[in-house]
Amino acid sequence: MIKKYYSYEEFKEDTKKLIKKVESFEAEAIVGIARGGLTLSHCMAEGLNLREVQTIRTELYDGSCKRQDISLFGICDFKSVKRVLVLDDIADSGETLKAIMNYLELNFKEIEFKSATLFYKKTSVYKPHFWINEAKEWIEFFWEKDYEAKK
Amino acid sequence: MIKKYYSYEEFKEDTKKLIKKVESFEAEAIVGIARGGLTLSHCMAEGLNLREVQTIRTELYDGSCKRQDISLFGICDFKSVKRVLVLDDIADSGETLKAIMNYLELNFKEIEFKSATLFYKKTSVYKPHFWINEAKEWIEFFWEKDYEAKK
Repeated sequence: MIKKYYSYEEFKEDTKKLIKKVESFEAEAIVGIARGGLTLSHCMAEGLNLREVQTIRTELYDGSCKRQDISLFGICDFKSVKRVLVLDDIADSGETLKAIMNYLELNFKEIEFKSATLFYKKTSVYKPHFWINEAKEWIEFFWEKDYEAKK
Repeated sequence: MIKKYYSYEEFKEDTKKLIKKVESFEAEAIVGIARGGLTLSHCMAEGLNLREVQTIRTELYDGSCKRQDISLFGICDFKSVKRVLVLDDIADSGETLKAIMNYLELNFKEIEFKSATLFYKKTSVYKPHFWINEAKEWIEFFWEKDYEAKK
């Protein structure tokens, strides 16, 4: 698959668009999915003037069956908010976002959750409420490429 | 006070330096302080190849006395990690970092915590274990300036 480097400058323009897109939802808090959604959550929280940013993370386990199991880490705890924006960089397989939205909607029935991503792949099992680009290539985000860890 | 715009390019170079500085600590997890430490936590987690990033946030209240009270939000939950890196953008007054380090050290006595920031002000009540720049001006971080919220 072709790799596409996604620079900070591209991120900046897309994030500004996403801020505009989600404005009418009037979110009062952000849940960022770690690690991919952290920088996006930070910049969108600034742009939307929201101080409350919580994070959640998942791990994929190869189960004994064919399907992979997803475990969620991080306890969300909302006080007097009614609308929460859930942010990730990409809905790729969509399994992470699907699991997290299910968890949030089941556990906080009085809150409305909407999801937003920079990229959305048409084959994803979950479609975010708001997204900017269709992912047709393998996206190499600047936060991955610019700090590449020694393996 | 003179304002200094701190660009993504400057952040990238400093973050790479900070990654090198903290490497010998061999952290197994990151606690990022929201909002200021979120982008740094994301990029350092990538560079250090750490999947576990938790976040914590504080709010300052003007108490009835002279001193401001700090409230902490976000529940940290560590499983089988021994060394944790606590990240924020700047140790300015230092009150936030001091409160968070106290909270972590009191509640997780078996874990060693070390703190790291991009900027450190000499008047801070708390000095991070690792830092890159002395803050002599008012730093306008790119994540603040590039997405500036309508007030």
